[in-house]
Amino acid sequence: MACKPNILFIMADQLRADYLSCYGHPALKTPNLDWLASRGVRFSRAYAQSAVCGPARMSVYTGRYVLSHGASLNDTPLRQDEWTIGDHLRPLGYRTVLVGKTHMRADLEGMGKRKIDPASVEGSLVAEAGFETYSREEGIYLDHWPAEKRFGADYNRYLRDRGYSGANPWHEWVNSVEIDGEVVSGWMLEASPYPARVREEDSETPYLTHRAIECIDAMGDQPWCIHLSYIKPHWPYVAPAPYHALFNANDVLPAVRSADERITQNPVFAGFQRRRVSRSFSDEKVRVPVVAAYMGLVKQLDDQLGVLFAALKARGLFENTLIVFTSDHGDYLGDHWLGEKEFLHEPAIRVPLIIVDPREQSDASRGSVSHALVESIDLLPTFVELGEGDPAHPRLEGISLLPLLSGGTIERRYSFCEYDYATMRFRRELGQPIDKTGIVAVVGARWKMIACPGFEPLLFDLENDPGELENRSLDPQYAAIRNELEAALIDWALRPRRVTESDENVERRTDTQVTRGIKLGIRNANELAVALAEEAGQ
Amino acid sequence: MACKPNILFIMADQLRADYLSCYGHPALKTPNLDWLASRGVRFSRAYAQSAVCGPARMSVYTGRYVLSHGASLNDTPLRQDEWTIGDHLRPLGYRTVLVGKTHMRADLEGMGKRKIDPASVEGSLVAEAGFETYSREEGIYLDHWPAEKRFGADYNRYLRDRGYSGANPWHEWVNSVEIDGEVVSGWMLEASPYPARVREEDSETPYLTHRAIECIDAMGDQPWCIHLSYIKPHWPYVAPAPYHALFNANDVLPAVRSADERITQNPVFAGFQRRRVSRSFSDEKVRVPVVAAYMGLVKQLDDQLGVLFAALKARGLFENTLIVFTSDHGDYLGDHWLGEKEFLHEPAIRVPLIIVDPREQSDASRGSVSHALVESIDLLPTFVELGEGDPAHPRLEGISLLPLLSGGTIERRYSFCEYDYATMRFRRELGQPIDKTGIVAVVGARWKMIACPGFEPLLFDLENDPGELENRSLDPQYAAIRNELEAALIDWALRPRRVTESDENVERRTDTQVTRGIKLGIRNANELAVALAEEAGQ
Repeated sequence: MACKPNILFIMADQLRADYLSCYGHPALKTPNLDWLASRGVRFSRAYAQSAVCGPARMSVYTGRYVLSHGASLNDTPLRQDEWTIGDHLRPLGYRTVLVGKTHMRADLEGMGKRKIDPASVEGSLVAEAGFETYSREEGIYLDHWPAEKRFGADYNRYLRDRGYSGANPWHEWVNSVEIDGEVVSGWMLEASPYPARVREEDSETPYLTHRAIECIDAMGDQPWCIHLSYIKPHWPYVAPAPYHALFNANDVLPAVRSADERITQNPVFAGFQRRRVSRSFSDEKVRVPVVAAYMGLVKQLDDQLGVLFAALKARGLFENTLIVFTSDHGDYLGDHWLGEKEFLHEPAIRVPLIIVDPREQSDASRGSVSHALVESIDLLPTFVELGEGDPAHPRLEGISLLPLLSGGTIERRYSFCEYDYATMRFRRELGQPIDKTGIVAVVGARWKMIACPGFEPLLFDLENDPGELENRSLDPQYAAIRNELEAALIDWALRPRRVTESDENVERRTDTQVTRGIKLGIRNANELAVALAEEAGQ
Repeated sequence: MACKPNILFIMADQLRADYLSCYGHPALKTPNLDWLASRGVRFSRAYAQSAVCGPARMSVYTGRYVLSHGASLNDTPLRQDEWTIGDHLRPLGYRTVLVGKTHMRADLEGMGKRKIDPASVEGSLVAEAGFETYSREEGIYLDHWPAEKRFGADYNRYLRDRGYSGANPWHEWVNSVEIDGEVVSGWMLEASPYPARVREEDSETPYLTHRAIECIDAMGDQPWCIHLSYIKPHWPYVAPAPYHALFNANDVLPAVRSADERITQNPVFAGFQRRRVSRSFSDEKVRVPVVAAYMGLVKQLDDQLGVLFAALKARGLFENTLIVFTSDHGDYLGDHWLGEKEFLHEPAIRVPLIIVDPREQSDASRGSVSHALVESIDLLPTFVELGEGDPAHPRLEGISLLPLLSGGTIERRYSFCEYDYATMRFRRELGQPIDKTGIVAVVGARWKMIACPGFEPLLFDLENDPGELENRSLDPQYAAIRNELEAALIDWALRPRRVTESDENVERRTDTQVTRGIKLGIRNANELAVALAEEAGQ
């Protein structure tokens, strides 16, 4: 009996789609990812479910939209009975293992309510988004954290073993540079042109690559799903030498933005523009060196993927491993006068997605590009179908992408990406209560709407205005388009959330009400006989 | 130390608001409920969260809208980590006990996933909507059910002990009548004018009253919340003597319906009209005797509440017991050419609600009527606040009504009632997929919209057209009203569902980002100092 294929699920953090050469970046060459794309399918229109780490990842790990799983802010705990990758894949025979970041916060209160002990084997899986944690690495270690959380973490221990000093070696070496002999925190944007103090081979991306290869070697015969979840090119934007200096102002693309956008009528967009990070990225003196550092971090990631792919090859693993490469969300990098992510233009929500299916049935699609609308929540159903489970499980809201790998199609008219701006200070300036802060991008084949409850939406024609510079929401010429997208939004928002019952069962119940004894509106025995015959004859 | 007040939470099943004399019914006198209203506050605009038992009750028991808890159909299991009345009240020192119906179906698959054993004490509470089940009684026992479920149930055992014969005494005696010497099932509408075969004192409503008094007597010193959940006047529409014959055609109000409604442009409304039960109720020969039987069942309920109240009085319980009387939803009874409930006109969704708070602070409101928009999900926060818990707990979506009892106000502009017509056969005729079947009534102070995704809504002016006979949704004169209600719907549908994090915590996080170490967009040490000072100075 052939073994089920392994799954190597690689995720970058805050990597926008267009910063890879296979996605068209002219200066940033990523030959290893380009090679990966040549072996599988590259998706040109893959959308994250949220424009910020935590919610986006919880959607990836549960296969469900943010409105459904509820963890709409970074660090909002994920309810204990959201079923994660591990919950779905373990019954199919998979080990599901983490190397890197999840941004998971356990719902300790909810677990306690049901007496699920986080120290038990089951409980620790619930607390860790369903993963066995080979190594968890969240990317930052804050100085005010308790010592055991800082110093005891895998990566800080590794750094100490490699001779780096201090109570928080990550902060002192990985997230610091030297400027004129003074140590400056990598949090400061002025640090971007300088190399991180850490040796390149000890920096985060090589560290996680190394840990992933170790983890692969530790797996036995059981099929596995390893989530290798890199923490870069996410801020802090400092890269180790030589990557800090690989790119210069000539390599940095101009920001996609227009003067008109600064006088936007949309108060939420305006609020995001007023943020400190947006003001910083709107200054070319800041943006250009920071983007160059970001590019260096991407380049380092691509180099490390080369190391990883060589290791896979040496172990013969390409033969029986589904490989996915994606990101949790993008980064504005100064486009639209914004820094960070969070709002819902394409730079923030469109992510790279490459899937390599080793099986013969996908041979014909190798090296092709799919322009289908796909979403991050599609990954889990894809894995479930690969593992011979039911991708239409009622807890899964995505669609398996396997058909797209073997020449088929999927049915989707719109993608949805959400953000909850409750913790943004401008929310108060807008007078928005804390429960009216959910915004949603509705993305169709050509048109895209960003709905901001309480305010007029933004409406863009992605075909003729791929830079999303011309807001058409108040143009009567496009009223029908806007109505259509608004209807799609309400359909989506109001769809029933029957996580505990399959559609198949709902269909069965539709046809058997009288037979099952619920004899509604029937006057007498004759009518009953007719009703039963009707149901029997369907 | 004074004890926390007990809570006696009485619910009728399928009792529409206007079938009590305190709510204005001219022929149906309900002196016991009228007396209860004179001791507390009667709510003229209380809305159920769904127009069908299961979803409506899951909303009552969780304090959450149907879209949030997800059990949108009858018998769709409730997710195991939805927190119920018991989950909220037990930590406040309450026993939470059931006598009667819940329509709960346990999420055994979800419980199994987290190793919650339904046979354990904790697990049985989860499986029973959070209640200790003093007696569960769901109102029907179907012949094809397994024998132990039929014959072993509390009420069928009671009937057997009282000398009723057969494998399913409920069916053979309580739900049967004799017509010309032949036994006819109470499911048949032709049975309504005849008395049920059971002796009145052994019928469902006296049985549950008797069990409730027993249950009260079994409680110790600990504060309790007893959910006395009657199963009538819900169908089957047969009443025991003398209640089957108390009302006649002269007492039955004319149906509220117009010829125009039969040519409705709304395909969902039209679909409901095509149902067998609607066709039956549109025939006066059926409607009049069935409504008379329904009135008899309500009258019997009121009489039994008299028995209950006397028992409470004898035990001195009125002094320290909050008493709530409500229903899970209403009944069309032929209004709008419909039978049953499920669609969202007032007869189906407006419920009676009377609350008697024994405490002095509520003395001034006794006998008054509140016209505030209130919802079924408000009851649990009311209980939580009474029990000295936090009614703003993030898992609660309702609002405590205690302020309304003591002369205050609550903030609510709209109420929302949902229905999911996935199991209706007309859904297929409409070509609606199984995930586009969620309809929502948005009810404001004056206007009400029934949104049916995929179709034009219905729009009613409840002030000038309380019968909801004039649909204004396509009248340009009311376009602004419609827009306003549509905006309210989208605000409601998109509100974040952060069940695991309090609003208070979200506010705290808004103000402390830099302080907590997330130094976004800061260029250098000077800017950092400014940012920290800003946060400190807020």
